[in-house]
Amino acid sequence: MFQIRTDLAVEAREIYNEGKEQEVPGVEVEREEQEDYTITRIKILNELGQQKLNKKVGSYVTIESPSLKRADQDLKDNISKVLAKELKAIIAPNKHKKALIVGLGNRNVTPDALGPKVVEKVLVTRHFFQAYNKTEDESMANVSAISPGVMGLTGIETGEIIKGIVEKTNPDIVIAVDALASRNMRHISSTIQISDTGISPGSGVGNKRKPISAEYLGVPVIAVGIPTVVDAATLINDTIGLIIGEMKNQTEEGQEFYSLLEGLSSKDKYSLIKEVLTPYMDNVMVTPKEVDDLINDLSQVVSNGINISVHPGIDLKDVNRYLN
Amino acid sequence: MFQIRTDLAVEAREIYNEGKEQEVPGVEVEREEQEDYTITRIKILNELGQQKLNKKVGSYVTIESPSLKRADQDLKDNISKVLAKELKAIIAPNKHKKALIVGLGNRNVTPDALGPKVVEKVLVTRHFFQAYNKTEDESMANVSAISPGVMGLTGIETGEIIKGIVEKTNPDIVIAVDALASRNMRHISSTIQISDTGISPGSGVGNKRKPISAEYLGVPVIAVGIPTVVDAATLINDTIGLIIGEMKNQTEEGQEFYSLLEGLSSKDKYSLIKEVLTPYMDNVMVTPKEVDDLINDLSQVVSNGINISVHPGIDLKDVNRYLN
Amino acid sequence: MFQIRTDLAVEAREIYNEGKEQEVPGVEVEREEQEDYTITRIKILNELGQQKLNKKVGSYVTIESPSLKRADQDLKDNISKVLAKELKAIIAPNKHKKALIVGLGNRNVTPDALGPKVVEKVLVTRHFFQAYNKTEDESMANVSAISPGVMGLTGIETGEIIKGIVEKTNPDIVIAVDALASRNMRHISSTIQISDTGISPGSGVGNKRKPISAEYLGVPVIAVGIPTVVDAATLINDTIGLIIGEMKNQTEEGQEFYSLLEGLSSKDKYSLIKEVLTPYMDNVMVTPKEVDDLINDLSQVVSNGINISVHPGIDLKDVNRYLN
Amino acid sequence: MFQIRTDLAVEAREIYNEGKEQEVPGVEVEREEQEDYTITRIKILNELGQQKLNKKVGSYVTIESPSLKRADQDLKDNISKVLAKELKAIIAPNKHKKALIVGLGNRNVTPDALGPKVVEKVLVTRHFFQAYNKTEDESMANVSAISPGVMGLTGIETGEIIKGIVEKTNPDIVIAVDALASRNMRHISSTIQISDTGISPGSGVGNKRKPISAEYLGVPVIAVGIPTVVDAATLINDTIGLIIGEMKNQTEEGQEFYSLLEGLSSKDKYSLIKEVLTPYMDNVMVTPKEVDDLINDLSQVVSNGINISVHPGIDLKDVNRYLN
Repeated sequence: MFQIRTDLAVEAREIYNEGKEQEVPGVEVEREEQEDYTITRIKILNELGQQKLNKKVGSYVTIESPSLKRADQDLKDNISKVLAKELKAIIAPNKHKKALIVGLGNRNVTPDALGPKVVEKVLVTRHFFQAYNKTEDESMANVSAISPGVMGLTGIETGEIIKGIVEKTNPDIVIAVDALASRNMRHISSTIQISDTGISPGSGVGNKRKPISAEYLGVPVIAVGIPTVVDAATLINDTIGLIIGEMKNQTEEGQEFYSLLEGLSSKDKYSLIKEVLTPYMDNVMVTPKEVDDLINDLSQVVSNGINISVHPGIDLKDVNRYLN
Repeated sequence: MFQIRTDLAVEAREIYNEGKEQEVPGVEVEREEQEDYTITRIKILNELGQQKLNKKVGSYVTIESPSLKRADQDLKDNISKVLAKELKAIIAPNKHKKALIVGLGNRNVTPDALGPKVVEKVLVTRHFFQAYNKTEDESMANVSAISPGVMGLTGIETGEIIKGIVEKTNPDIVIAVDALASRNMRHISSTIQISDTGISPGSGVGNKRKPISAEYLGVPVIAVGIPTVVDAATLINDTIGLIIGEMKNQTEEGQEFYSLLEGLSSKDKYSLIKEVLTPYMDNVMVTPKEVDDLINDLSQVVSNGINISVHPGIDLKDVNRYLN
Repeated sequence: MFQIRTDLAVEAREIYNEGKEQEVPGVEVEREEQEDYTITRIKILNELGQQKLNKKVGSYVTIESPSLKRADQDLKDNISKVLAKELKAIIAPNKHKKALIVGLGNRNVTPDALGPKVVEKVLVTRHFFQAYNKTEDESMANVSAISPGVMGLTGIETGEIIKGIVEKTNPDIVIAVDALASRNMRHISSTIQISDTGISPGSGVGNKRKPISAEYLGVPVIAVGIPTVVDAATLINDTIGLIIGEMKNQTEEGQEFYSLLEGLSSKDKYSLIKEVLTPYMDNVMVTPKEVDDLINDLSQVVSNGINISVHPGIDLKDVNRYLN
Repeated sequence: MFQIRTDLAVEAREIYNEGKEQEVPGVEVEREEQEDYTITRIKILNELGQQKLNKKVGSYVTIESPSLKRADQDLKDNISKVLAKELKAIIAPNKHKKALIVGLGNRNVTPDALGPKVVEKVLVTRHFFQAYNKTEDESMANVSAISPGVMGLTGIETGEIIKGIVEKTNPDIVIAVDALASRNMRHISSTIQISDTGISPGSGVGNKRKPISAEYLGVPVIAVGIPTVVDAATLINDTIGLIIGEMKNQTEEGQEFYSLLEGLSSKDKYSLIKEVLTPYMDNVMVTPKEVDDLINDLSQVVSNGINISVHPGIDLKDVNRYLN
């Protein structure tokens, strides 16, 4: 059966909640409205919630800012600070003094290059700690960063590469940055999701790979992601849903026609999707034309947020200082 | 009213022909089937054909090769030769000894980078002709090439830039290479269209700009294009069409329900499309995830085809020779 | 005879002045010392000065800031403002309301990519003026920008491309940004030269091409450049000079040996240079390993400087605003 | 004292041999002359040879082809086959069925991007072996590939990253590709060195880092390198040597002047080099302007050579087949 593809917990919740009154069982939600942005904190508390939302037990913080997609520097700086604040709350930088920043995705595919572009702007310091045999610094954390590339180009699962590096460099925490797929175009380039559950590469597209998670790596893994694409099959499925809904509004229950609409099985839907996307099927992405500008802007927002959050004594202004 | 977006004449014809017996009036079509590829030659003969297909009067040659999207070197070389043969038939290289190759599109957006990537691989010779005050060479044509960039980055219409260069360098012919939008995913990266009608930048997306055409530039313009994206609004519109068709099959004419389906106005469709694509709407593209590999392969196929076709005394083997 | 390669007027003057008391005839010089930088204003007044310095009659403003090569954001912002101030003094933005920014050089060769990288960050507005049929705006100038590429890839002289575009778009002024060659490593990435004399592509390497100048383009041309390489032949020649000088210090005039040193003809020097650089000879550049970081930083400094200087109502803060 | 920088064993030998009759003690040399290329096989047999040449005990195979720097496709294919043959002789692909290809260097610095560019063109298969739980294939080897980036961007020693990956993926052999520094411009882009001694990152520039070697990684390491730069300090030092030699030829021994030349201590030389290269000193590279084209061509030559050598049943033609 066809499965809606979304990497966003806020969307997974919407899907479940559609037409329901009460909250998803096993899930706690808290919203904070600000002028420029909204923060939604979703806690998946147990197996039940995990199964309902098809997301692992843990915390999912979503920062939504519709104007982020064409933000001026003030808004971008502001969102960097918000991101840093939320990250700090999860990372506890005074506990985790050694961080490995991982940029996931393929640098050669514009909408997938968020991770590698963030890593290019991250303030790495580990080699200085090594060179001077330092273990601590009051203002700077011990930070390393890597963009391992994608399995199609390396032949190696990204999780394996990272685990190998983690075992050699022993970070206290891993922060993995990735471009996400959302269900809804509204979330593209306007939403940042932070979670403490790690990442399952390509999980959304249904193939089972080694997760980039605390269980597998042996250290906490914080995932930071921004939706840059919508999965085409999901987009089409939702379109079909909309039109059927539209028609239902124009008829009364009980009518033969109504039951026909009801009866349009997911198998029919799937064959429609297939017909539209052949020969590429599961491998088609939907993305805005200006995606390169969006990625450049957002990689700056995210890297600044990370730089501020991991280094105890550094603020937005310092970042630029140190970076040069 | 919503308009289906396609840059391919073969698709424009399909759209018109749907459910019709006879050929489009004012249009001549000829097909040539080969083992690895099919060539369709569409001639739009007059105003009537132009209006029916919403494409300018002229010739449109389409080379379709479904396996091109994962071709081995033999097939790619073969298609390069086919492209060269078709180009030669239009260009008449012995008549047009000075060619300007133009790479349209934005090099920073993977699916839009076909033109700039082709230009990088084109064998340019004009500076040698200038340096040695040569006007003719029996084996080589006088070739120059440029990737002007996109209006959003230059502030100048691409047509104006090219016209300025044409007036300074006086080529006999302009060959403009561009990534296209097709209606159907099946054509992505498997179809090459050659036309003698030039290109209207972004015409498909409904904004009127200066065309890159013989009328405007004063020299013949050959357009070579490969579809790399499907316009998202078109994809959704077709999906709606498919599902309505599906339902019609399940009811009989005359039924109230049938008329309801009939009655689903294009306005309704458009508002559905809008609902799905907001806030990006007209600026969303649908493209395969492996688009970067596809573009790299195809830019080689096209540049080789152009190199062979413009230089009288050069074949596929020589191309590699001269290029280094 | 071998000729020292430098694009910097300050170095041309040093070369002439070596061991001389008085200023170069036909040349006026003025220096302004600041904490973070020094500005040298060289005016070549007449034919005599032009011949002595081998630079065209006109103004050459040089901003030198040794710490620019590893500057923090404050210094970079400061130098952007200094650059803007000096540019404004030459451009007179209220007189020149339409500017074309030209990025010279090859984007694929790291130390030559300064121009194209600056153009990517320039705030272009011309297409908006066109779209809204506006001729004036109190805060914004009418700005377009282009990176034409290098002759080896286009087959067209850069000057011809730009002239063609100028004739189509009628700017009031052209600002051409280019990576320069300096004689001295000290100037690499720490010096910005502004001149009102335009640019002669590859002039330094002794081939005569169409200049990018007011005479040729018909509008004022301001050149903005930063040295990113030293010509290898020049570096070797200077090394030879240094060692000969060194030896002279260790002997007395009149000695046979001294005359031998004197006698070491430029022909000998040239054959030495040749021996060292064969088989690449005139085409070898000397550049710091970290050149990519330097170029990225400096392209931001220059683009901000240009953005502030051409747009009457825009300051450094606004730049970031408008750019997104 | 100043040390000549070269990564080539053939140059290290020249340095030692200058003006000597007999071969370097502890070193065996064998030359094979062909029409298009020369192969030099240097075996460093023991401690003595190691110390004389300042290169580790082991085999160094050098393929020199002066015309490689502007080769046509035939020569490039030919050199790929020669490289493959020499690699096979060292790798013994039937013994080593699992290979990890490592691309060293910084992809953002043109002359340092050879390794990453080769890795992009390597035929990786490991993920297929994993997916189908295959351990063997008669025509294909189990190949993975990675470009770890440089320590300045990752904060991690490249050796550590690779060791981590080796421990996770257990290859039988590592092939590390890197851009080299040669002493002599003649070797730039015309020489391929293969060695079984691994690589010491930045060893040439005198900082001690973890080597990428069999001792450290626990599996054989084959290094494949091509010189793309000359170290500027070395170039200057050689220039000084040449001019002193030149002068010696013009005087007789015993003369006071002659002894002065003799007396020019390496300390003087060093201070001269310093004077020329300040403020960049040890971090300056000398490279041809067309280095980007050279790197693109050579990365193809090397990747094809590797692809043929590691996969038992694959020849040059197949490579292109499989790659697409």
